[in-house]
Amino acid sequence: MQALVDAARRKESVLVAGLDPIPSRFPEELRALPEAEATLKFCLDILEAVEPYVAAVKLQAAFFERLGPAGMGIYADLIGAARDLGLPAIADVKRGDIGPVAAAYAEAHLGLYGATSVTVNPYMGEDAVLPFLEEARRRSQGGGVFVLVATSNPSSREVQETTDPPLFEIITKLVAGLGRQSGDYPDAGAVVGATRPEIGGRIRELLPEALFLSPGYGAQGGAVSTIRPLLDRRDGGVLVNSSRTILYAYERSAAGYKEAAREAAREAREELRLAGARL
Amino acid sequence: MQALVDAARRKESVLVAGLDPIPSRFPEELRALPEAEATLKFCLDILEAVEPYVAAVKLQAAFFERLGPAGMGIYADLIGAARDLGLPAIADVKRGDIGPVAAAYAEAHLGLYGATSVTVNPYMGEDAVLPFLEEARRRSQGGGVFVLVATSNPSSREVQETTDPPLFEIITKLVAGLGRQSGDYPDAGAVVGATRPEIGGRIRELLPEALFLSPGYGAQGGAVSTIRPLLDRRDGGVLVNSSRTILYAYERSAAGYKEAAREAAREAREELRLAGARL
Repeated sequence: MQALVDAARRKESVLVAGLDPIPSRFPEELRALPEAEATLKFCLDILEAVEPYVAAVKLQAAFFERLGPAGMGIYADLIGAARDLGLPAIADVKRGDIGPVAAAYAEAHLGLYGATSVTVNPYMGEDAVLPFLEEARRRSQGGGVFVLVATSNPSSREVQETTDPPLFEIITKLVAGLGRQSGDYPDAGAVVGATRPEIGGRIRELLPEALFLSPGYGAQGGAVSTIRPLLDRRDGGVLVNSSRTILYAYERSAAGYKEAAREAAREAREELRLAGARL
Repeated sequence: MQALVDAARRKESVLVAGLDPIPSRFPEELRALPEAEATLKFCLDILEAVEPYVAAVKLQAAFFERLGPAGMGIYADLIGAARDLGLPAIADVKRGDIGPVAAAYAEAHLGLYGATSVTVNPYMGEDAVLPFLEEARRRSQGGGVFVLVATSNPSSREVQETTDPPLFEIITKLVAGLGRQSGDYPDAGAVVGATRPEIGGRIRELLPEALFLSPGYGAQGGAVSTIRPLLDRRDGGVLVNSSRTILYAYERSAAGYKEAAREAAREAREELRLAGARL
C-alpha cells in the first residue's frame, strides 16, 4: 500500500477521487459526442482538475465494461493517464472468484491494465482473496488489496451484520490473517463504508493496523464525523473515497465541470485535513 | 430461465459446458498462435464439438478479461456463436456491486454482450441482485440471475457456513424473496456447488421451486451422487456445469481435443440422464 501512502503524504490528502462516468450526468457540452469519446474526455479532464488535491483515483470498472471492448481501452488509457500524473489507481472491480479465475482477474487489473490496487469480494472466502494478494506481491508496485468488509449501502446490513458472529467480523479476521506488512501498512486492507461508523469502529478494533478504503463520503451521507471512528490511533489508516460529489459538482455550481470538480476536491481534502486525518 | 429450460428439454440434457480457456492447457497445435487467436479458435471448436449434448454454455469472464479489450471482443463473438448454435449463454461474471454500478454490469453482460443469464455475488445484499433481475426482465430473453449461495471451493465454508444462522440460509431467503415466476422456474436461481450435497439439500428445502446452477461436477469432485440431493421433487431444478473436465478431456485421451471434448460431454450428459435428472 506504500504507493498510496506516499502519494497521500506528498499531497497532504487522504482523499481518493472515484471515476464513476455516467453519461446521462455528463455536462451538456459533452453530450453530443459518442459515449466512449465523451467518457474518455470527461474522465481525463476530471483527473487533471482534481490531481492537486487527491492521493489516488479509483476507477469503477462497471462504467467502462458497459461500453464494451472500447470501454476497456478507455479504462486502460485512464489508468495510464493517472500514472503519468503521479496518481496511483485503485481498480474498483469487486471481483470475487477463486483459484485460476481469481488469478486471471488479478493479472488483468494489476498486470495488464496496470492498477496499483484492487477491491475484492470475499463471499467465496480466502481462495478469492489470496490470488490478488499474490499478484500484488509479485508486481511490487506498492499496491495491495482492499477486501469488502462493511459496505456503505443500506441492504448490505442484512447480509453483513445479522448473523452471530456478524459476517463482517469473520471477514475482518480473514483480512487480518492474510495481510503481510509492506511499508507502513499490511497489503490486505478493508473497504469500510463511511456511512456505518459504529460498525467501522468495531472493525478498527479488530484491525488496528490496516488501511481502510472508505466509500460513501459526500453523496451517500458519509462525513468527517462518520469517518472519525474508522481512524487508527494516530488519526491514520483511512483513505476516503468521493466519486459523484466531485465528478458532478458542476450540477450544483455556476462553474464549469472542471473547476467545480477541482473545487469540490479541494474542499473535501481540506475538510479531512482539518479534521486531522492523514496517512 | 425458460430459454435454459427449453434448451435442456430439447437436448434431453441438464449439462452446461463451461468455457474456461486457459492457454497453458491448450493443445499443442494451438500454442503457436497468439493467445487471443488461440482462445477464440479453441472455444469455437469446443462449442461446435459439445453442442449436441449440452443445454447451454457458461463463459468464465475472467479468462477473457485477462486478454484485455481484445479478449472482451472474443467474449462477445463466442456469445454470438453460441446463440447461432441455439445455445443460451450464461455469463459467469459473479459481479457484486450496487445501484447504477450493478445496472451498468447488467447492461454490459445481458445487453451489449448478449448473454441470456448471469451469475451474481450477493455480499452487498439485495441492492446487488435486483438491478440484474430488472435488466433480465427488461430484456425478456428467457434468462435470469444465478445468485452465489453455496460455492464449491473449500474456503467458502468459513464464510458461508460458520455463522448462526449460516450465511447461505440468509442468501437463500434473499433469492426466494426476489425471484418472480417466469415460465417453469422463478427468474432468480442459485449457484449451489455439486461438492456440498448436505448443504445443497438444505438449500433445496428452502428453495423448492428454484433453478440451481451447480458447478464442481467432474474435476472438483462433484458426481451424480452429490447432485441428487439438489434435485427438486420431480428430479428437476438443476443445471450441472462441467468446465475443465470437458475442455481438457484430450489430456487424458488419445483423441484430438474436439473429439475428446465431445465424448466427455456425451458421457456426462448420459450419466446425468440415466440418473433421471431433467428440467
